[in-house]
Amino acid sequence: MSRKGILIVVSGFSGSGKGTLMKELISRYGENYALSISATTREPREGEVHGKEYFFITKEEFEKKIAKEELIEYARYVENYYGTPRDYVEEQLDAGRDVILEIEIQGALKVKKAFPETLLLFVTPPTSSELKKRLIGRGTETMEIIESRMRRAVEEAEGMDKYDYLVVNDDLGHCVEEMHAIIRAEHCRSFRNAAFMKEIKDDLSRSLKGE
Amino acid sequence: MSRKGILIVVSGFSGSGKGTLMKELISRYGENYALSISATTREPREGEVHGKEYFFITKEEFEKKIAKEELIEYARYVENYYGTPRDYVEEQLDAGRDVILEIEIQGALKVKKAFPETLLLFVTPPTSSELKKRLIGRGTETMEIIESRMRRAVEEAEGMDKYDYLVVNDDLGHCVEEMHAIIRAEHCRSFRNAAFMKEIKDDLSRSLKGE
Repeated sequence: MSRKGILIVVSGFSGSGKGTLMKELISRYGENYALSISATTREPREGEVHGKEYFFITKEEFEKKIAKEELIEYARYVENYYGTPRDYVEEQLDAGRDVILEIEIQGALKVKKAFPETLLLFVTPPTSSELKKRLIGRGTETMEIIESRMRRAVEEAEGMDKYDYLVVNDDLGHCVEEMHAIIRAEHCRSFRNAAFMKEIKDDLSRSLKGE
Repeated sequence: MSRKGILIVVSGFSGSGKGTLMKELISRYGENYALSISATTREPREGEVHGKEYFFITKEEFEKKIAKEELIEYARYVENYYGTPRDYVEEQLDAGRDVILEIEIQGALKVKKAFPETLLLFVTPPTSSELKKRLIGRGTETMEIIESRMRRAVEEAEGMDKYDYLVVNDDLGHCVEEMHAIIRAEHCRSFRNAAFMKEIKDDLSRSLKGE
């Protein structure tokens, strides 16, 4: 079915393991997917490579991109901008690859608004007690940090039902296969195959008229 | 994720091979699925068994079922009633099995209206030329029969975009796996997991309040 790529946003609770999940998905099915690379104005950390972890650009360059609508979404945290360059995403989609953006909920909803066909996936631990265990960590964090994580998780939970699918990360291998299956299935959605349906309808009508 | 069964309606063009597809799906994954059995007032044909191909009941019994709302949908063709008994479907859904109804589009839309969470799948040949080939058959049919099939296909095509997914029947084995994957993925839809999301939200809020 639909060979055009799908834009996929993956979000999830802190500690849901979505980073590892994405890496494993790419390592198993890299030919199907492209991971979007964000642009940022923050300084590269040691070992980070321009064009791999991020596109590192200046504030002026970033603001030029905003003005020229060259970003699908962007946000400012403290002093720095982060955003998703449009050109790379569109190239990959046109080449038939599904493009994955790993962003948080505010960004996810902005992308969905701009591109209603975006697929929103939310990664979650299998139970709420497991979620709390992961938020609390190994017991070496301060109460302040735990409470701040917990508050953020409450916000994330509030947005969960805006996502199309929940992906339960119980076992990495199983979860990767489930996510891959969801995305494959999504290519069969009728609204993603409007051209195919039109062709069938038009061709049948022509045949009936004896053309 | 969601362990409650999903009600699935499968329709498709005449000649799309959906009957064979259903049989293969049940033979591979029978433990997951239950095929709904229709009730009808028509006479059993040779070899047809009550409770297997159909529930064969009298017109009086059928009309009593209509009055008592014991049918999910029904239709009358010529002199006979056909309908889907509600009790069997609900039992199977509660037992966590996905129930498949193989019905045509008018019935499908009635079911979707009564049960908005119903999953609608439409089976189609891979191309419109393949579809026409199957409608025309081996060239042994009268022009009248071919034209009547063609008219019906035009109607079916008009309804295609009301379905959630298109399932392309190119190769039986591949198509069965695709349909199975679509249904498995559908269990991860967020709207089918409202109870899970509520539990997470409530539990996080309680933890944050220190309860």
